[in-house]
Amino acid sequence: MSDFFEKEKLKKVDLGAKVASYPMPVALIGANVNGKPNFMVAAWFMAAGISPPKVAVALNKLHYTNAGIKENKAFSVCMPSQDQVNVADYCGIVSGSKADKSNVFDVFYGKLKSAPMISECPVNMECKLEKVVDNGGHEIFLGEIVSTITEERYLTEGAVDTKKVKPLILSLNDRLYYELGESTAKAWSAGKNYKT
Amino acid sequence: MSDFFEKEKLKKVDLGAKVASYPMPVALIGANVNGKPNFMVAAWFMAAGISPPKVAVALNKLHYTNAGIKENKAFSVCMPSQDQVNVADYCGIVSGSKADKSNVFDVFYGKLKSAPMISECPVNMECKLEKVVDNGGHEIFLGEIVSTITEERYLTEGAVDTKKVKPLILSLNDRLYYELGESTAKAWSAGKNYKT
Repeated sequence: MSDFFEKEKLKKVDLGAKVASYPMPVALIGANVNGKPNFMVAAWFMAAGISPPKVAVALNKLHYTNAGIKENKAFSVCMPSQDQVNVADYCGIVSGSKADKSNVFDVFYGKLKSAPMISECPVNMECKLEKVVDNGGHEIFLGEIVSTITEERYLTEGAVDTKKVKPLILSLNDRLYYELGESTAKAWSAGKNYKT
Repeated sequence: MSDFFEKEKLKKVDLGAKVASYPMPVALIGANVNGKPNFMVAAWFMAAGISPPKVAVALNKLHYTNAGIKENKAFSVCMPSQDQVNVADYCGIVSGSKADKSNVFDVFYGKLKSAPMISECPVNMECKLEKVVDNGGHEIFLGEIVSTITEERYLTEGAVDTKKVKPLILSLNDRLYYELGESTAKAWSAGKNYKT
């Protein structure tokens, strides 16, 4: 163990208080807003529960989407593929307050009837809003996943195959989308090679 | 717009309520627990604020780490590189309740003095706990990022370069770690190619 400011000062650099760049998966967050389906691109979301399955999404309070999620108590997390990079990015550049995005995609609804989803997306998670947490400039929407809708062609042994989806990954600092690379190791297994 | 159960029923498949597989960035979450630094691997975290910068981490309530974060009101989000895949995975396989992980890494502390960080990790975000949100089986820890600590060799034009970090990415369904692939498009730009 070492004290950072003594031992590490020559090697380490403190960039100050900021979100470090890391590979962020990209989703389109769907909600009905003012009676129409709307989609925004978001990279600040995470799985947040298993039984029942849950997801969390952090959205800037300035977004057009937020009011729609609260009103309908429903939203979707739609995973676009690399083939949809232009339209996904468009949904990040243009706010629903400025442009009607209801016809950008072929929209469908699931059991909640109020969380718009995207036919063109390989994977859609339909979510029931459970809680909104105030987090300063952002709100965190906690949702329970009620359906995960995909197509046979994206499955391997009955589960969504991440590689087949060709997911979009965002790197914030260089403002680039990346694709998923090659697999390098087995999870819950590689650790057995670690010698204590 | 189409009704899912009419138009899409032949094409779409509902896998039921579950977290879909998507590329999840991998971090080691650091906290002092019972007076010693401890690290667990986690893929359920996200950025959650800009000004001030914030992060959210969803941890199963069964984890050894949770009590330490609450006690010290501090934690770290340490980003391992591909070179650390074995030791990172080890920190996911073995609980701090069963093994002392305080000597697994060269540990250092920053300004909070109570959020252990990892010298070997390319990027460490030091976080002050702001709020714990009950989310059923999981707790969501909301933290303000107070320092982002890296090294010159991971920077490009003063910012962390995601590619240089060689981040670990987890795919849940196939239980594999992946590397980041090639860049495919410019974010906040590719959307200009979308024709409405």
